[in-house]
Amino acid sequence: MNEEVMCAGLDTAISTVGKPAIDSPLNAMTTCMEDLERVVIDPNLGAVEKCLREGREIPSFELAGPREKIFFDPSKTKCGIVTCGGLCPGINNVIRGIVLELYYMYGVENIYGIPYGLQGFIPGYKHSFVDLTPAYVEYIHEMGGTVLGSSRGSQDISEIVDAIERVNMSVVFFVGGDGTMKAASLVAREALSRGYRCSVIAIPKTIDNDISFVSKTFGFDTAVEEARKIIQCAHAESKGAPYGVGLVKLMGRDSGYIAAHAALACPDANFVLVPEEDFDLEGENGFLRTLEHRLVSRGHAVVVVAEGAGQKFFEGMPKETDASGNVKKGDIGLLLKDKIEEHCKARALAVNLKYIDPSYVIRSVAANASDSIFCGLLAQMAVHAGMSGKTDMLIGLWNNRYVHIPIAISVGERKKIDVNGALWMSVRESTGQRVMKN
Amino acid sequence: MNEEVMCAGLDTAISTVGKPAIDSPLNAMTTCMEDLERVVIDPNLGAVEKCLREGREIPSFELAGPREKIFFDPSKTKCGIVTCGGLCPGINNVIRGIVLELYYMYGVENIYGIPYGLQGFIPGYKHSFVDLTPAYVEYIHEMGGTVLGSSRGSQDISEIVDAIERVNMSVVFFVGGDGTMKAASLVAREALSRGYRCSVIAIPKTIDNDISFVSKTFGFDTAVEEARKIIQCAHAESKGAPYGVGLVKLMGRDSGYIAAHAALACPDANFVLVPEEDFDLEGENGFLRTLEHRLVSRGHAVVVVAEGAGQKFFEGMPKETDASGNVKKGDIGLLLKDKIEEHCKARALAVNLKYIDPSYVIRSVAANASDSIFCGLLAQMAVHAGMSGKTDMLIGLWNNRYVHIPIAISVGERKKIDVNGALWMSVRESTGQRVMKN
Amino acid sequence: MNEEVMCAGLDTAISTVGKPAIDSPLNAMTTCMEDLERVVIDPNLGAVEKCLREGREIPSFELAGPREKIFFDPSKTKCGIVTCGGLCPGINNVIRGIVLELYYMYGVENIYGIPYGLQGFIPGYKHSFVDLTPAYVEYIHEMGGTVLGSSRGSQDISEIVDAIERVNMSVVFFVGGDGTMKAASLVAREALSRGYRCSVIAIPKTIDNDISFVSKTFGFDTAVEEARKIIQCAHAESKGAPYGVGLVKLMGRDSGYIAAHAALACPDANFVLVPEEDFDLEGENGFLRTLEHRLVSRGHAVVVVAEGAGQKFFEGMPKETDASGNVKKGDIGLLLKDKIEEHCKARALAVNLKYIDPSYVIRSVAANASDSIFCGLLAQMAVHAGMSGKTDMLIGLWNNRYVHIPIAISVGERKKIDVNGALWMSVRESTGQRVMKN
Amino acid sequence: MNEEVMCAGLDTAISTVGKPAIDSPLNAMTTCMEDLERVVIDPNLGAVEKCLREGREIPSFELAGPREKIFFDPSKTKCGIVTCGGLCPGINNVIRGIVLELYYMYGVENIYGIPYGLQGFIPGYKHSFVDLTPAYVEYIHEMGGTVLGSSRGSQDISEIVDAIERVNMSVVFFVGGDGTMKAASLVAREALSRGYRCSVIAIPKTIDNDISFVSKTFGFDTAVEEARKIIQCAHAESKGAPYGVGLVKLMGRDSGYIAAHAALACPDANFVLVPEEDFDLEGENGFLRTLEHRLVSRGHAVVVVAEGAGQKFFEGMPKETDASGNVKKGDIGLLLKDKIEEHCKARALAVNLKYIDPSYVIRSVAANASDSIFCGLLAQMAVHAGMSGKTDMLIGLWNNRYVHIPIAISVGERKKIDVNGALWMSVRESTGQRVMKN
Repeated sequence: MNEEVMCAGLDTAISTVGKPAIDSPLNAMTTCMEDLERVVIDPNLGAVEKCLREGREIPSFELAGPREKIFFDPSKTKCGIVTCGGLCPGINNVIRGIVLELYYMYGVENIYGIPYGLQGFIPGYKHSFVDLTPAYVEYIHEMGGTVLGSSRGSQDISEIVDAIERVNMSVVFFVGGDGTMKAASLVAREALSRGYRCSVIAIPKTIDNDISFVSKTFGFDTAVEEARKIIQCAHAESKGAPYGVGLVKLMGRDSGYIAAHAALACPDANFVLVPEEDFDLEGENGFLRTLEHRLVSRGHAVVVVAEGAGQKFFEGMPKETDASGNVKKGDIGLLLKDKIEEHCKARALAVNLKYIDPSYVIRSVAANASDSIFCGLLAQMAVHAGMSGKTDMLIGLWNNRYVHIPIAISVGERKKIDVNGALWMSVRESTGQRVMKN
Repeated sequence: MNEEVMCAGLDTAISTVGKPAIDSPLNAMTTCMEDLERVVIDPNLGAVEKCLREGREIPSFELAGPREKIFFDPSKTKCGIVTCGGLCPGINNVIRGIVLELYYMYGVENIYGIPYGLQGFIPGYKHSFVDLTPAYVEYIHEMGGTVLGSSRGSQDISEIVDAIERVNMSVVFFVGGDGTMKAASLVAREALSRGYRCSVIAIPKTIDNDISFVSKTFGFDTAVEEARKIIQCAHAESKGAPYGVGLVKLMGRDSGYIAAHAALACPDANFVLVPEEDFDLEGENGFLRTLEHRLVSRGHAVVVVAEGAGQKFFEGMPKETDASGNVKKGDIGLLLKDKIEEHCKARALAVNLKYIDPSYVIRSVAANASDSIFCGLLAQMAVHAGMSGKTDMLIGLWNNRYVHIPIAISVGERKKIDVNGALWMSVRESTGQRVMKN
Repeated sequence: MNEEVMCAGLDTAISTVGKPAIDSPLNAMTTCMEDLERVVIDPNLGAVEKCLREGREIPSFELAGPREKIFFDPSKTKCGIVTCGGLCPGINNVIRGIVLELYYMYGVENIYGIPYGLQGFIPGYKHSFVDLTPAYVEYIHEMGGTVLGSSRGSQDISEIVDAIERVNMSVVFFVGGDGTMKAASLVAREALSRGYRCSVIAIPKTIDNDISFVSKTFGFDTAVEEARKIIQCAHAESKGAPYGVGLVKLMGRDSGYIAAHAALACPDANFVLVPEEDFDLEGENGFLRTLEHRLVSRGHAVVVVAEGAGQKFFEGMPKETDASGNVKKGDIGLLLKDKIEEHCKARALAVNLKYIDPSYVIRSVAANASDSIFCGLLAQMAVHAGMSGKTDMLIGLWNNRYVHIPIAISVGERKKIDVNGALWMSVRESTGQRVMKN
Repeated sequence: MNEEVMCAGLDTAISTVGKPAIDSPLNAMTTCMEDLERVVIDPNLGAVEKCLREGREIPSFELAGPREKIFFDPSKTKCGIVTCGGLCPGINNVIRGIVLELYYMYGVENIYGIPYGLQGFIPGYKHSFVDLTPAYVEYIHEMGGTVLGSSRGSQDISEIVDAIERVNMSVVFFVGGDGTMKAASLVAREALSRGYRCSVIAIPKTIDNDISFVSKTFGFDTAVEEARKIIQCAHAESKGAPYGVGLVKLMGRDSGYIAAHAALACPDANFVLVPEEDFDLEGENGFLRTLEHRLVSRGHAVVVVAEGAGQKFFEGMPKETDASGNVKKGDIGLLLKDKIEEHCKARALAVNLKYIDPSYVIRSVAANASDSIFCGLLAQMAVHAGMSGKTDMLIGLWNNRYVHIPIAISVGERKKIDVNGALWMSVRESTGQRVMKN
């Protein structure tokens, strides 16, 4: 974790739209919290002691949870929910959780669903806002996807704030990734600058689990569960044929968390290739020779590759971008498939390669139990934050606690696997894989 | 069903290696059957009455099951099992079922597993036969794949029979597809012609469910279960984006059974394209215009395509063959993806196409409950047939009964969906799909 | 199968409300069938030949499917659906299938759901009819249970017909068990006797799979899948402790089909006790001594018992009945638990018995792929039958074909496992279990 | 968290069998850690600041992980693994993980499995030690239970140490609950007092997740996943009948974690009764009246009860104990069933109660992906700790980090839900449940 960033985080106070002054309806049923409760960001003893030695404040995050005083009067409050970017298991759970918490706990009855992401805010869009009632959301958590629809790409911030003002929404929940959180932050600031009191709360969503200062994003656990099944299939295929190789490509544009976790969950994986660890294909220590040795000695192999791995092999090729502006990756799965087959052919090794690219299959399923719990709690925490008037922040899980994180300190830089850290060490031990560099 | 074939079937008596004369150990625990019990092949009343009118015999199959007299003395019997071709859910269940039935019911203790398909018979192959004991097979049914390994392609029949004779096997079980059954038949005949008394029993295996006179092959039900999940994902993806199209390619080289059944199991599918029904891409009634209408009116669509569909669009392109000699199909999935995107672009329809090719994922999982039962019964029936000295035949399920079918009448011609029959009619009703021809 | 019953079936023609004279809208998309197409009930060659020898007609069922001419004018047709009795996987699929088939294929727009079973017909009931639209049923097949609610017990037939007449329903679909089908038959006849043209079509529903002339009822396959998981747990428990016994009680009041199939699906079961096979507890050949031998020799055992098994051990005890009038069974699961523990204690065998009674868990889940297909086809066939004016009949699966069966010949007598037949023989082979009688 | 206990923890240094002096074979592949790396136990900023104000050390745990120097020479090291108490998902993963880490990473080849828990150590026990090889453990993680067998209850400590010495084991891994960890601690101390250098490492196992200073135990996540399915069934049953109540009893002797998490995972639960929160049955605010109101207003209800809840209702009844010495709980599930039916009868409310007691079903399944990862990492950490000569300690997960915890500070007191804390607050919000006390 980058220390400067952490300390910067400390200085970035959570923004609010005003001082909460209304008694929360939740006081009747539970013990509410104060803003003063905070959790140390880096609980390593050495890090804490270093701060003390240097006379610096210990960086910490504000704990999320219900507050005794809230800012918005529930009887007059209107809320909005928008879901952006690619699908992720649990979006419907988050929507449902927000709606039920607002309705039953706070008594908020007007909740609008924005259709198909940010473009749903824009005047003249062909779909209108959806009226989100308890009946509407009753069963949605049993299904993958998002009932609101989603889309990629940015929209004019001013038009979004106009749309919010037009309906007079007090709290807007943005469920999305890095780009969406940036937009949410701009919306929050534009509203504040107009003097329009609107809380903007983000719930980070990324199937790649690569958001800084968020130890786990919702849906990740489910995606790993699905990815594990794929690797198990690849394992069966690899053992079912002479010199069988099961090659699986998994999501992970810039970070290999899904590949790493799925490989730990299915410890039959023998190679895990991720964007964070450089590797060579050719040469005595390269991937191809290492794989060949494994095939000769053990008769089969399972290779898991994250889509963002080995991008250096595509250098010099033309680049395309998608609707969110992400540069499209070279297809490392197909490249490996070809290279392995070529290499084995040259060595007269009759490899049986089975290539599996499950693509969207790991992300469009319904949330498993663990993610269902997680999404439900994120939704509760987001509603508490919104009703108490906080804005320009996201709800994250950090050191097992739900916390408020200013959007600014989280966006911009992706979380990545530390190849000298505990996770990657465990992957090395589980697979037996060495660094494949000459 | 072809009538001539049926009647030919009648004339093709089940071959035997000799007259069974030993009391079966199963008499102690169950009621055994006689060879005389048969089931009518085509139970449609009209078909039966036609035979009567024409004075022909009613074509029928011999029922499978334990016989009072068996041919081989269990205490001296050695058996072999070989698994060939691509993976299919339930192969391990069949292996386990055969081993446990032979061991516990008949008292046969020497059972060999041939490694990696037919090539495992060939002298000098790097792996030797596996000793199949109850302990060895105890847990294998909980896993996909085949513990014996498999391979594609044919081997010298004479060498196979030599290998069988060398070990002195009395019964050999061939688990495989069309090519494997042809080889099994040749092995059976070669043994008979040498005067070597060896029963050869085939258990048909094809993920495509396209074996003639076999109403369902094992593993098909599980594959459909998995394929359904993929279509459900495609449905979530299609609804999650503006003008979303979920496009799924499923196995099915010559027959679209998996695609058709999976689409019925997940009735969110809107289009099912199979090899059996010709369709046009272009033109007012073609697929692309029909899809476009659906997108405009309903906002999303799910398309399921069997890999063997639309091969006419690849005419004139060079052809490759795989190790089993099958001609490789043109990739209809990728072709449709490109054509849909092109068509929509030309129409200024901002389609969001999500392409999913689950490839091997639907076939390398463990058998579900229904297939587990099925595989267990096939194994029992195969053992009964083998021990009673029958040969050159396969075990099939027909009119809900397990029957003996001479290999010759089943191989050669693939079973296909009758596009005027009940199954396809139901698919049309479920999807609302019309014939897409100009 | 009882021959007299079969032949009686022949004489009981399918009733109709009148001659169909309207061109079916399905003619535009598919090839329709004629009533003349029939399937032989017993396709065993011997049974067919016996009929011929005796100069009797070969008993057969009419095939289900779309007809060229229908009776009801879709634009004026109102339909009703009622679901009765205990839950079963797939009820929601059947409801959805009927609604979508009526709406999209025939153009029927008024479809009512009767709330909570037959009592929903009775005037003054607190819930009113539900308006079943495509939107309402869109996602219901992904969930277990029934969206309409259900109830047990009978209601006044005349009041039911009054309710149907009041709304002017043309076709009413009854989804339920033996009692419900009897009620449906009475409703059909009462309507006919009033001169009110109403088609009554039954879709048999029983988790026990014990309906005569119906080879498989919907939901059974899913229930077996769930029951298998329970036995797998019992197996793990039995192996996890010294002298471990996993004892599982499964549904099956009068027929042990679930127990038998689940034991075949999880071949780790060592004993299967069903209502159809008498057994002793005590004595040298009794269950307790046999179990003891197994425990001593193998260290663990898995016992599966159907709830209706061993009822002779409760003779002389007071009997209760449930709301449907079924006599409550003595709890054979708890009795076995006590008896096993007593017996082992007396033998100084330190048994570790783990008793599992999953009760409703196997029946309240969503339908698996196979049952989803099945329910969809049953729904299509039921709609075809109803629209063409047939009445007082049920849709069944027989010899792999969907057929029309007059309710009268199916109800009254439960289907039972033939302990000398193929299914039970396979269970004996799979478990190694002998008849446990002294 | 109790502060005194935390500080005591600080003073209880991790015991070692001697100073590690051998270079670890892992240095070749990964970056090893030092004992000095520690994590703050309570990272709440207030707790840390309080320590500073009071001039006390900040309580912390030593981080687990590979060390540069190890104590035992792998070529001479023998290890043992014993699994005790009830089943839990993931035991086989832990066994497999330990064996593969020892074998492939450290080069330890002699690994013994102790059969059936602590009694497997005792001379004359009928089963001998199992030779744990990579081949033996290859597939075991795909199955529930424990391949070693387990048992409850304590054994003579001296005899256990004798058995360990006899085989000359250097590291012994104890997988078990509170009682097992106490025994492990006594074994560690007895060995040290004999001057026998043996590392004893515990991996805490409890399906109830109630071990102090361990934020989550392995198998818990999987058990919650299974428990969720049961609640979903109860929900379907409750909605399927008029005034339906689905009542589910779940494991949780002293702590209601499974019930609480499963209810969050399936937010259809309306009542969650746990040992930690007192409630009344009768009276205006009691459970029965509250349930009645829900039934009248909403028509159905789902009730989840932990087995240890409401034990005050059994006061004065005779008590039994199990083999581990645990007092058997009164059956709160059956008591609630009877009380609800009585209450509703008295109120003329025709309740339809469906009672589900899944018992062992939630614990004897295979580990899900998340638990598989977790078990694999616990196994790696346990091996690192053992090989480096640490003893009398357990591996725990704390603040998302794997740590070494002296057994003494963890055992004795169960972790319980804080009914004023964040978890229970979320349960209240999710269910809408109030305190049911008069």
